[in-house]
Amino acid sequence: MIILKLGGSVITRKDSLTPALDSSNLTRIAREISNSSYHKLILVHGAGSFGHPYAREYAIGSEIDSKEELVRKRQGFSKTQNSVKHLNQLVCQHLLEQDIPAVSIQPSSFVQTWNKRIISADTDLISKYLGLGFVPVLYGDVVLDMEDKIKMAVLSGDQIVKYLAENLKPEKVILGSDVDGIYNKDPKKYPEALLMKVVTSPDDLESTDGTQTVDVTGGMGGKLGELLELAEIGIESEIINASQDNNIKRALNGEKGIGTLISMKNEG
Amino acid sequence: MIILKLGGSVITRKDSLTPALDSSNLTRIAREISNSSYHKLILVHGAGSFGHPYAREYAIGSEIDSKEELVRKRQGFSKTQNSVKHLNQLVCQHLLEQDIPAVSIQPSSFVQTWNKRIISADTDLISKYLGLGFVPVLYGDVVLDMEDKIKMAVLSGDQIVKYLAENLKPEKVILGSDVDGIYNKDPKKYPEALLMKVVTSPDDLESTDGTQTVDVTGGMGGKLGELLELAEIGIESEIINASQDNNIKRALNGEKGIGTLISMKNEG
Repeated sequence: MIILKLGGSVITRKDSLTPALDSSNLTRIAREISNSSYHKLILVHGAGSFGHPYAREYAIGSEIDSKEELVRKRQGFSKTQNSVKHLNQLVCQHLLEQDIPAVSIQPSSFVQTWNKRIISADTDLISKYLGLGFVPVLYGDVVLDMEDKIKMAVLSGDQIVKYLAENLKPEKVILGSDVDGIYNKDPKKYPEALLMKVVTSPDDLESTDGTQTVDVTGGMGGKLGELLELAEIGIESEIINASQDNNIKRALNGEKGIGTLISMKNEG
Repeated sequence: MIILKLGGSVITRKDSLTPALDSSNLTRIAREISNSSYHKLILVHGAGSFGHPYAREYAIGSEIDSKEELVRKRQGFSKTQNSVKHLNQLVCQHLLEQDIPAVSIQPSSFVQTWNKRIISADTDLISKYLGLGFVPVLYGDVVLDMEDKIKMAVLSGDQIVKYLAENLKPEKVILGSDVDGIYNKDPKKYPEALLMKVVTSPDDLESTDGTQTVDVTGGMGGKLGELLELAEIGIESEIINASQDNNIKRALNGEKGIGTLISMKNEG
C-alpha cells in the first residue's frame, strides 16, 4: 500500500483569492497514476485555494466566545466544507476520466478532532474499499472538534496522511509538492542551497528552520517533524516535486532518490 | 427535530438521461426552509437523474460473478458516487445561498449495508452537528455491501430517512414528493381517485398496490410499508407535494393536512 499526498499547491492555483483548479496539472497527474503500477493506493489531497481563503476569513479553529461568533463560524464551516467538497469532486472526476476507480471519503463525515488533532476516525471502511481495488481519496476538510472552546477545526491533508499511515501501515508515503524536496537552507535566499537526499533526524531540521520551501500547513518544521515521527515507526516517506513530469509515476513505480527521503537513522 | 426528505424528482429533472438539476425548484425550496421555523432539521435528498442512470447502467447491487464484472461495477460505483456527490454539492450550495448552515454527510463514507439494508452507520456525528445548529444533509448514494455476492449497493434516500428516524426519533418526518400524497387508486388511471388524508394500516395499501403515484425507490408499496413501520414506533410522517409553493414551509411550521399523513391507527 502507498499513500500519495497531492499538495493543494499542485492541484489548485494556491495563490488565487477564489477557488481555482489547476486542471492541466491534475489531468497529467491522473494520467501518471493510471500508467503506474501499485498494489493498493490511497490518495489525500490538500485544499489549496478551495479551502484556505474561507478557513482564514472565518478563522475556523479559533475560540468561539459568543453566540454571534458561533453563527458566523457555522456559516464559514459550511462554506469551507462545500468548497473543498467541490474540489474533491473535481479531483475524483479527473481520476475517473483516466479509469482510476476513485472513491471519495469525506473527512467531515467520520473524523472528530480534539484541539485540532484526530481523536476518532474509523479506517475500517477505507480498508474495505482498498480490498475491493478502489482508490480512496481523502482531503483537507473542516471537522467537528470536541474541545468546547473551538468546536470546529481545519483538518489538513498532512494530518490525514499521518493518521492513515499510523493506522494502515503503508510501505511508503509519497508527498507530491511543488518544490523538489527539502534543502539544507532556504533556496530562495541562498542560491548555494543543496537538496537533501535523506533526512533522518530532527537535527537536520535546524538548518531549515523557519523556511517555507515545502508546501506546508503550519510550516515545514511541523511537516518534517511529523514525517520523522512516521520514520520512527518504520514508515518511510519521500517529498517529491509533483509539478515535474513523471515524478509521481516514477515514485509510484518504486524509484527512489527523486526528492528528499525521510527515513530512519540507520538507513541514512 | 424534523427529518425532511426531498425526492430526486423534486430537485432534479428525473427523466433526464444526463444529470440535470431543477435549480428553480431548489432555490424556492431553500428559501422556504430558510423562512420557516424549526428546532433541529435533517435533510435527506434523492439522487434523481444524477444517480439512477449510472446505477442502472452498471446494475449496482446485482451479483458479481467474475473479475471483469467487479472491475466494471467498481467503475460504475465510482461514477455514481461522483455524480450524486456533485448533486449534493449543488444542493448544499443552494441552501448556503439562503443562509442555511448546511453540512454535507456522505453516506458512502460511513454507512455499510448487508444485502442492501443498513447494518452499520454511526449517527453520533450527525447528532453533534445538530447540537451546534447545523443542518446535516444526507443523500441517496452507493455504499459497500457486506454480502460478498453483491459487494456494492444503492442506498436510497428513503432507507436513510427510515434509519435516521429509527435512531434519532424525530418528532416528524416530512417527505417532499412531486405528487399531492397517496390516493385510494392510481389517479393517472382513475380520475375519481381521492387523496387519502391519513393512512394508518397496511390494509390501506391494497387499493394502491402496484401504482407509482409517489416518487419511489422500489415502488410505493415498499415506501408506505416503511413509513407504517415508523408509525408503529410512534413516528408520524407526511407525504406532501414539494413542487407546490409553500408546502414545505407550511409543513416545517407544523401545519397538518397538507398531504397524506401516515400515523398510528388510534390517531386515524
